[in-house]
Amino acid sequence: MSKKCALGIDYGTNSVRALVVDTATGREMGTCVYNYPSGDAGIITDGKDANLARQNPADYVRGLEASVTGAMAQARKLGVRGTDVAGIGIDTTGSTPIPVDGKGTPLAFAKEFRKNPNAMAWLWKDHTGHAEAAEITEAAKKLRPHYLAKCGGTYSSEWYWSKILHCRRADRKVFESAEAWVEHADWMPAYLAGDTRPERIKPGICAAGHKAMYNDAWGGYPDAEFLKKIDPVLGALRKKMWSKAYTSDNKAGRLSEKNAARLGLPAGIPVAVGAFDAHMGAVGAGVSEGRLVKVLGTSSCDMAVLKNTRKIKDVPGLCGIVDGSILPGYYGFEAGQSAVGDIFNSFVRDFVNGRTENAASGKKTDVHTYLSQEAGKLKAGESGLLALDWHNGNRTVLVDPRLTGLVMGYTLHTTAVEVYRALVEATAFGARVIVEREEEYGIPVREIICAGGIAEKNPLVLQIYADVLQKMIKVARSSQTCALGAAIFGAVAGGAHKSVTAAQKKMTGIKKETYRPRTREKKTYDRLYGVYRKMHDSLGMPGTRTDLSGVMKELLDVKAEAAG
Amino acid sequence: MSKKCALGIDYGTNSVRALVVDTATGREMGTCVYNYPSGDAGIITDGKDANLARQNPADYVRGLEASVTGAMAQARKLGVRGTDVAGIGIDTTGSTPIPVDGKGTPLAFAKEFRKNPNAMAWLWKDHTGHAEAAEITEAAKKLRPHYLAKCGGTYSSEWYWSKILHCRRADRKVFESAEAWVEHADWMPAYLAGDTRPERIKPGICAAGHKAMYNDAWGGYPDAEFLKKIDPVLGALRKKMWSKAYTSDNKAGRLSEKNAARLGLPAGIPVAVGAFDAHMGAVGAGVSEGRLVKVLGTSSCDMAVLKNTRKIKDVPGLCGIVDGSILPGYYGFEAGQSAVGDIFNSFVRDFVNGRTENAASGKKTDVHTYLSQEAGKLKAGESGLLALDWHNGNRTVLVDPRLTGLVMGYTLHTTAVEVYRALVEATAFGARVIVEREEEYGIPVREIICAGGIAEKNPLVLQIYADVLQKMIKVARSSQTCALGAAIFGAVAGGAHKSVTAAQKKMTGIKKETYRPRTREKKTYDRLYGVYRKMHDSLGMPGTRTDLSGVMKELLDVKAEAAG
Repeated sequence: MSKKCALGIDYGTNSVRALVVDTATGREMGTCVYNYPSGDAGIITDGKDANLARQNPADYVRGLEASVTGAMAQARKLGVRGTDVAGIGIDTTGSTPIPVDGKGTPLAFAKEFRKNPNAMAWLWKDHTGHAEAAEITEAAKKLRPHYLAKCGGTYSSEWYWSKILHCRRADRKVFESAEAWVEHADWMPAYLAGDTRPERIKPGICAAGHKAMYNDAWGGYPDAEFLKKIDPVLGALRKKMWSKAYTSDNKAGRLSEKNAARLGLPAGIPVAVGAFDAHMGAVGAGVSEGRLVKVLGTSSCDMAVLKNTRKIKDVPGLCGIVDGSILPGYYGFEAGQSAVGDIFNSFVRDFVNGRTENAASGKKTDVHTYLSQEAGKLKAGESGLLALDWHNGNRTVLVDPRLTGLVMGYTLHTTAVEVYRALVEATAFGARVIVEREEEYGIPVREIICAGGIAEKNPLVLQIYADVLQKMIKVARSSQTCALGAAIFGAVAGGAHKSVTAAQKKMTGIKKETYRPRTREKKTYDRLYGVYRKMHDSLGMPGTRTDLSGVMKELLDVKAEAAG
Repeated sequence: MSKKCALGIDYGTNSVRALVVDTATGREMGTCVYNYPSGDAGIITDGKDANLARQNPADYVRGLEASVTGAMAQARKLGVRGTDVAGIGIDTTGSTPIPVDGKGTPLAFAKEFRKNPNAMAWLWKDHTGHAEAAEITEAAKKLRPHYLAKCGGTYSSEWYWSKILHCRRADRKVFESAEAWVEHADWMPAYLAGDTRPERIKPGICAAGHKAMYNDAWGGYPDAEFLKKIDPVLGALRKKMWSKAYTSDNKAGRLSEKNAARLGLPAGIPVAVGAFDAHMGAVGAGVSEGRLVKVLGTSSCDMAVLKNTRKIKDVPGLCGIVDGSILPGYYGFEAGQSAVGDIFNSFVRDFVNGRTENAASGKKTDVHTYLSQEAGKLKAGESGLLALDWHNGNRTVLVDPRLTGLVMGYTLHTTAVEVYRALVEATAFGARVIVEREEEYGIPVREIICAGGIAEKNPLVLQIYADVLQKMIKVARSSQTCALGAAIFGAVAGGAHKSVTAAQKKMTGIKKETYRPRTREKKTYDRLYGVYRKMHDSLGMPGTRTDLSGVMKELLDVKAEAAG
């Protein structure tokens, strides 16, 4: 065992996880998860408004102590002492801004606001600001089109300014009581360092660049003139904001005496600037130039990097391009599919019959595993089906939440197993659209590292991805890549490694089992992808006029060939 | 009780039903069903060839005695005597040709052929002749395009000449032993009359016109020159064939002494010329000009009539237009949907979860009824879904078996109940395409009489049809319209009524419960039908190039309005 460790703290949607990692080997020495006690699995909702999703910042504070002390207790059994911890890194969901007072205390901690969701953290998936998002997009289209070009052409209701503007419209009292709106990823390190005063916050480039239209090219956050045109109060707010955002290899501060005592660690440990979970997760999975990381869970997050000395173009349809948001010294490219595992879950929830459910439990396995095993017995194209993976809209490259799922090729004999496989294939085709777009714009994708629940559990999905994408698919060694990524930034901020890439070399790895693209499947999937693209473009891209009368027959031909 | 009765005998796919009907009131006095003992529920299949479907003609003969004596035994309890039976009518499936010897005896009755499926009746749904069908279509396109115009542009593998030609290619011995190929509908009346010699057969216009390209306009059956070009033996066969086909108000003969004794009826009862089940079923349901009959079962059969003194055009995509095939003195128009109930069955078989199955059995009902009840609680458009009802291809108006089913509009929250409703709506939209095509070509459809299993059991389907089609939907009073229709022809052939239409007035009726088109649903369904037509034309009609990028949004808009 090396003497040095790093601590990663990963704030997710429902819980927070702490992870103690050996900085020399990446060995995970201790971990602990704390489930948020508030609301519905940590999410404050509103029966009257499905768009509302908030978090209680008190859960963040309680969860810090519980998760870190738990992880350290495990690590101590392996000989790790508090003094071995070189640094602390933190990731959170985002954009999750918190309205705070002049001391940086969340408004929700004040008695008068304790039960007001508008005073809490506005969770990433809160969509209450959809009208404001449209307003901001329209204004930027007219006044600052270059702002939009870096975030795929549309400003989202999930993002920073939409939420603030919505609060201003919906709850004047909360808005006026807020001295600043601080991203959860920025507030957490400040809290550990014992100083949350807004003017002392060191904002991360990840949140600022991907969600708040920050870019050094135009002097940081969007200019006050522009924001004033949308609403005068936004202009005023902008003037109080930070002038610079930082990559996460920088220190945000050092662990305060008070927090050190609570966590059972020595005071003064460096705390890195915060970033989002998916971005630090990509680092923990081993992202590098040419090595795309795909986090496969309920949705997918596709992260790629390119040295910031290279010339890049804006990539139409990509959600974000930010210098340093993933790896310092590299442009970070964020893309994703709005639903992957969620599509399979939704199918299993409602469209799998009792006979199949019983067959799964007869084999002492869950329905997903059973369906995957059965679907694995089919050949590519044998189902005669083709699906579009738009059950939750399309994030990349169409950037359109108002698209829906489709399944075609049904006969009277179509089975649930066949549809399940078609849905898996559809997500693979969706993944291929993203990769092809990136390659077309000069972002090389030589291999793909998968992480997340599906990567851990479903070999069928990974083999189909290898066959459809014709790329080597590998799986990240760690099953908690986000916390590992945070620990890596902690290690670098604490001086245990000289750079993030150097730390990655020591602390990340891939699993033994890899998935190679197969030639025979390539031929079939190229044909099916052709059909997918025809449907994708026809139904998703205005102005496309394609003769689709051959697509069902093409599916029948492919099916006949697969069977014959 | 009137003194006169008529006997209808309905030969279906799995069984034969006899029905004794009061000719003055349509009251059903006795009925009996005989299930064919041979094969799989009456169908001889071949594990190696899914296209093969035959019937054992011995089942027809055994079933005749069993069903008629059973029905008469019931009727006798209500005071009906054998001498009260004015006439006998017979319907069968078709095209179901039987190879027979010089005496008209089915080859399958000969010892050497007893187990040879090629010597049996070639059931309507036998598709072994698909290559020969394509060959005949090609030849007709080049040499006799007017032949094709009357059967929708494509000669089917289900039809007379395809089957004969396939036998010639596949089993020379059977082919050479056959003196003639007699449709089941033509053979049965001859058998009752005690004389099946081919030259004495009186072929029905229904089978000849719809399946064998018979038309008085070109001198009956297709000319020998044309058939010779396809295969010389067909030309030779043609020369021995009948010169004229008859409507079913004509007598084929009179009940023979021998059969009379077996059936317990007096000899000499007139036996009407035979026709197909769907056609006689339309008559039993009350078809008339402006009153389309829709038989809703596993598939749909849509029958309409128009006085033969009117000028008509060929209707593109309609499977058949034959003078007198349904009602004497009227053109008969046959259209249909390749699958209706089969689509719902296939969904219930594989895509309804155990929870729903349990809920249905908890309510002591079957899954179809449960899903229909739940789907009935949804508003039109509320599911956000749209389906294409092509799971078994499209018969009318696209005439393309190589089309498949589609469901679009899935979200992560879509339920089985919603999909079930969307499938019902899809079949309604498919029905609307047929009706609009008929109206466009001058065939009036003022109201629709439904018959068949779904019409009897599923009010949701009928109400949706009324709303989508904006037509009054009524249900035939009899639940055995085919046998009733056969009895009507028996009554007319036997002189109990002067004409089929006069007999219909007395002997048919509709149920009390009718389904009125609703205005509010009209608006929604007109919009959804617009989306259906866009998808229908784009995916089903070569050369169509439509911008489909708005269709998913249109479904979401309709959904939001329905919910709001």
